[in-house]
This record gives sequence, structure tokens and C-alpha cells, in this order.
Amino acid sequence: MKTPYKIVDVFENGACTGNPVCVVKIEGAMPEDKKLQALANWINLSETTFISDSEVADYHLRIFTPDNELPFAGHPTLGSAWAFAELDSNKTLIKQKCAYGEVLIERKGNMLTFTLPHYIKGEHIDSEELCAQYPLAVCHSPQIYTTGPVWMVAQVVDKSALMSVSVGSEETVKWMKRYNAEGINLFYVEDDGSITIRTFFHANDLMVEDPACGSGNAAVGAYLIENKRFPPMGYIAYQGKARSRDAVVKVSVKNGAIQIGGKCRTIMEGFVDL
Amino acid sequence: MKTPYKIVDVFENGACTGNPVCVVKIEGAMPEDKKLQALANWINLSETTFISDSEVADYHLRIFTPDNELPFAGHPTLGSAWAFAELDSNKTLIKQKCAYGEVLIERKGNMLTFTLPHYIKGEHIDSEELCAQYPLAVCHSPQIYTTGPVWMVAQVVDKSALMSVSVGSEETVKWMKRYNAEGINLFYVEDDGSITIRTFFHANDLMVEDPACGSGNAAVGAYLIENKRFPPMGYIAYQGKARSRDAVVKVSVKNGAIQIGGKCRTIMEGFVDL
Repeated sequence: MKTPYKIVDVFENGACTGNPVCVVKIEGAMPEDKKLQALANWINLSETTFISDSEVADYHLRIFTPDNELPFAGHPTLGSAWAFAELDSNKTLIKQKCAYGEVLIERKGNMLTFTLPHYIKGEHIDSEELCAQYPLAVCHSPQIYTTGPVWMVAQVVDKSALMSVSVGSEETVKWMKRYNAEGINLFYVEDDGSITIRTFFHANDLMVEDPACGSGNAAVGAYLIENKRFPPMGYIAYQGKARSRDAVVKVSVKNGAIQIGGKCRTIMEGFVDL
Repeated sequence: MKTPYKIVDVFENGACTGNPVCVVKIEGAMPEDKKLQALANWINLSETTFISDSEVADYHLRIFTPDNELPFAGHPTLGSAWAFAELDSNKTLIKQKCAYGEVLIERKGNMLTFTLPHYIKGEHIDSEELCAQYPLAVCHSPQIYTTGPVWMVAQVVDKSALMSVSVGSEETVKWMKRYNAEGINLFYVEDDGSITIRTFFHANDLMVEDPACGSGNAAVGAYLIENKRFPPMGYIAYQGKARSRDAVVKVSVKNGAIQIGGKCRTIMEGFVDL
């Protein structure tokens, strides 16, 4: 079955500087889950999504990593809304239904912004344990936030240490699993209020680095709100340098809800034989 | 610039069971290397190739990993020849020019076979050192063979130990670099003469597993020839189970030269905005 698809660069700042998501439009019956998972495993992007018709929203979205299905993810939400707008609609306010709930996405030209439906504050993380995995001095109290995935969040003191840290070992995977966490966001606050962030997560028991992460940045936003250090006008997060990218993430708050924005661009498009 | 491309499943045994390669056809001037490397980094497949016109062969091929350019690679050679045949030609004997030299590819339906131009036998590898990285009993003498990339090759005694071994750590990367090796092929010979193989290599100082590897299987073929244990009729190698694939590689010898064959299938095709 030949099915339309796009591979969209999300949080881009020039072609191929953001995080790609493969977005497949299902026309007719949904193929069996095994096929969706096999494609996501094969194409090897951090996420592959499948858009289908919805009775309650503009489209229904399913999100697969190479290993499993996710209830929600940030950059796949923006990339899928962008592909939906290009394929089907010129809408500027897009409603997405996914397993995490309904998500609203605003589109202004190629800048798309989603509003996170909700987040959950989790456990405190022991700083010494964290430093045993990543040799970094951290400020304040590292913490878990669930923004779809379960994220660890820690603010670090030194930017060059952040940039030189490696993704983590099999020991790190075991440590994260004890907290039920899927990954960690380590960030540094610049003098101008912008942040530099690296997101590491485990997949198939290996640690990898995400080039640019929507839900991870939302978790950092939640952490800054809870610690009363969220800048009133929002801030810009820079991500991906260690993976040869140059991604830009806009983080803001509207009516108490966290919003994540980024520019989208279609790099590849055509048909997939599903 | 909108440019035709295909993502081809190589060594496939059913859709999305092999190793994908992204093949881009350059029409007109070759974009600057920075752009080619950025696309290969972004799409995150083990290899992305660029086909252009050649005066001495059917096409000129350049091969990029997410991090650097390679002189030769096996599954990208088969996938590129398949894309060339689909896009431009019905040829059954295809001549490819790449940095490693001229490579002949035979096409019989969707089965493509390349002949390795040459290989180089390298150093002996210390078995105890190997076992410090991978807790496996090895038979005979592990050895380096260059078949484009520089590969370690080791035959292992126990299949279940092979299937449960992990890809290796940062220590493994350092150990491989001391031998100038890019990766290792660990293989087990079944009673029927077929082999089960896992290929691990380092990229950006992290160890990863290749779902199915042409030049790696050629290195194993070279090892078996040198040890006078290459089956006269050739053999089948099975690869990729640990990465949820089910790849099939045909290894044979013709006039003293190693041949690597596999079935190809186009899964995705369209245009890339390069």
C-alpha cells in the first residue's frame, strides 16, 4: 500500500538543523500495529508518527519510537501538525488527539506551538547519584517531571562541563529505570536568560542523545515554574550542538499552561510502501 | 533544490527487515560536502549515498555516515545500485565508481550481488583482550580484515552467548581505535554451514549495532577463505535479530573474489529538499 509521508525538520534553524520526524498519513484502514512498529524501527528516527481521521479532533495521532509506542511526544506533535497542515488544511489552530489527550497546536507561518495538556511533578533526585552518572555540579534540587515521558531535570553550573559530558552508560540506564525515568534533561542558564540544554534517553538499554526535544523542554519549563524561576516573557532553548544540529526551542507559559514552539520544514516527502 | 531519492531496504526478507540506505540522485551540480554531510547526519541512517553521473562507470557514488564519508560500504552499494536501476536503467550488470575503486554489481530481479574489488589481511587480535570487551569464547585466531572499513573478525563458540552480548562500551571504542578498527563482526557457524552474525561499530565514540552489513560479511568471508574454511558453494548469513530485523546475506566466491548478495526493496521514495 503506497501511503503519503513527510519527514519534517522540527525546531529547525536552517535545513537539517532540527530533529526529524517521519509522519505517515493513513488513508483507509489502520495497518496492524506490528507494521507501524516495524517501520519506526527500520527508519531509525527518534519518532515516527501515523495520522488518521478523528471524530473529536483534526486528526488522531499515534507515535512510535524504534522500540515502542508513546502516549505523547513534543517534536512529533509539532512535525505531525505541520504535515497535517501541508497535506490537508491551511488551519492555523489545529486540534490533535493522541493517547495523552487533546493537544492544541497554533501555526503562524512555519512556527508551530503546542500547549502541554498537563504535567506531573515527581520525585526528588539525589544529586550525588546524578553526579556519579554525569560528572557535573548541579544547582538547586534535581527533580522528576512527567510531560508525556517521565523526565529527570537538572540545572548545571558549568556550560563547558555540560557540553563535554557523554551520554551515559549501561549503569546510567539502570539508575534511570530505578526512578522509572526515560531520560534526563541537563540545562545551563545563560546570562541573557536563554538556556543551553542536552537531552539523553535510553532506548533498547542504550543511552542516546536527542537532537531536540519538545517534552524534555516542557519538563524543564515545569521545573522553572515550580522553582519560581520561569522568566515572565518565556525563553529560548538551544539544543543539538553535540549532535551537529543547531535547534531552537521557544518555551512560554499561557494561562498557566506550558507552550513549546519551533519552526518546521519538510525535508523529504513522497510515498511509503506500508 | 528538490532532488529524487529512495530509501531502500537491503538484505531484506520481508518489508523493513533489512538495513535501510537513503539514496539521493544528484541532477546537475554536486552540492557542497557540508550539505551532504548534514543530510546524512540528520536522517540518522547508518549510510546515506549520493549518485551522480560518471564518465567511467554507470554512476559515481559517495557514501556518508552520520559523521563522515566512507570510501566503500556494502549495503549502500547494493541499495544504490538498486535505486540506480529503478530510476535510470534496466541494466543487469551495473558498474559503480566510488573512492575504493570500481565495483561490479549483478542484478537478477530484486537480488543484487556486488564483487569486492580487494581486501587486506591485517593484525592478529589478542583473544583475551577481545574477551575483556565481549565475554565470549572464540575459536581460532581473531583477525583484522580491511574490506573498505577496517573490521575485526572473530568466530564464537556459543550462539546464545553471541545473541545476549551487548554492543560494547566506551572502553571498547578505545580498544578498537588501538587497532585502527571501525568495528567488529562476531559470528557463529551453524551445523548446516549458515552463519549467525552481529556487527558492532563505533560512531561518534559510541558503540552501535548494524542491522545488516555488507563489508562486515565480506570481512568474515575473507577470514574463512584465509583459514581454508570457506564452504565451496558459499553460505547464507543471518543478521539483525537483536535489532528487530531479519536480514539475509548471501556470501560466495567467484574467481577468487568475494561476492555479497542481498534482496533490495524500495520502501520510501519521493523528493528531498537539498
